[in-house]
Amino acid sequence: MRILGIDPGYAIVGYGVIDYFSNNTFHVAAYGAITTEPNTKFENRLMTIYDGINTVINRTKPEAFAIEKLYFVNNVTTGIGVGEARGVTLLAAAQAGLPIYEYSPMAVKQAVTGYGKAEKKQVMELTRMILGLDKIPKPDDTADALAVAICHAHSSASALGEIYAKYGK
Amino acid sequence: MRILGIDPGYAIVGYGVIDYFSNNTFHVAAYGAITTEPNTKFENRLMTIYDGINTVINRTKPEAFAIEKLYFVNNVTTGIGVGEARGVTLLAAAQAGLPIYEYSPMAVKQAVTGYGKAEKKQVMELTRMILGLDKIPKPDDTADALAVAICHAHSSASALGEIYAKYGK
Repeated sequence: MRILGIDPGYAIVGYGVIDYFSNNTFHVAAYGAITTEPNTKFENRLMTIYDGINTVINRTKPEAFAIEKLYFVNNVTTGIGVGEARGVTLLAAAQAGLPIYEYSPMAVKQAVTGYGKAEKKQVMELTRMILGLDKIPKPDDTADALAVAICHAHSSASALGEIYAKYGK
Repeated sequence: MRILGIDPGYAIVGYGVIDYFSNNTFHVAAYGAITTEPNTKFENRLMTIYDGINTVINRTKPEAFAIEKLYFVNNVTTGIGVGEARGVTLLAAAQAGLPIYEYSPMAVKQAVTGYGKAEKKQVMELTRMILGLDKIPKPDDTADALAVAICHAHSSASALGEIYAKYGK
């Protein structure tokens, strides 16, 4: 299963595309960040993000789209901007017909490290190890996006496991 | 000048298209609301809004896009949803090449009634009178969208007036 993970934002949108195999191994297909210029009109930044997500989807052909859930925002003005950027990200995924899965930051930490309140550094280091990468991908948003993709891989695998257990398959 | 005014939201997006003439008169070209079903996936609601805005733009060919600014949101979870919906609305306008103008609720009230803290009912009644409509358009989001369009008409007219005054034209 090929999963596109997204760390939403409007200055930097991290993305990570991973293949998850039934023997619980991973292959990293692509990762990076869509960045937008601070001194441009906000609507142009939204277009850059939308076009960037479409490019990633068209190039990597993921089967599932996983994105971090926004729960709490300290700064409301920033929060609206993040929401707007997240909206065009979701739009691109929906238009491509991808199933969309949302995970809280705590669920992502839990999936990667086994502990929902793990330190950011620890999450990034375990993401690197799980994916067999030499270095932690930069910027942080990219590592976060890969962690979201791992979270979806694990939760879809455990959901399948539960179904198998229930129906004795 | 043909202006598309928008009252953003995710359950209801109000729109109003007005023509504003140099003799300070108005003509209403179109108004209505894009509504989305509460019990559907949020990404599908975003697609409905995006497609709806594109349809309005293609049918009415506005020259300017005016939208209410979000300043303060009581409920952060609702705020993120409104931000996401507003994002796809801005995206549609930007992709159509429309110049985008944002106005605070207070600026809209000021433009329509001359008083920035006017009651909602008063704003709607004056919107009806200014546009020469028999009844206040329903739902409220539609009347609000028309008020935003009036706000842009007045502020662009006064901006022109200022330029004319400055340069003696």
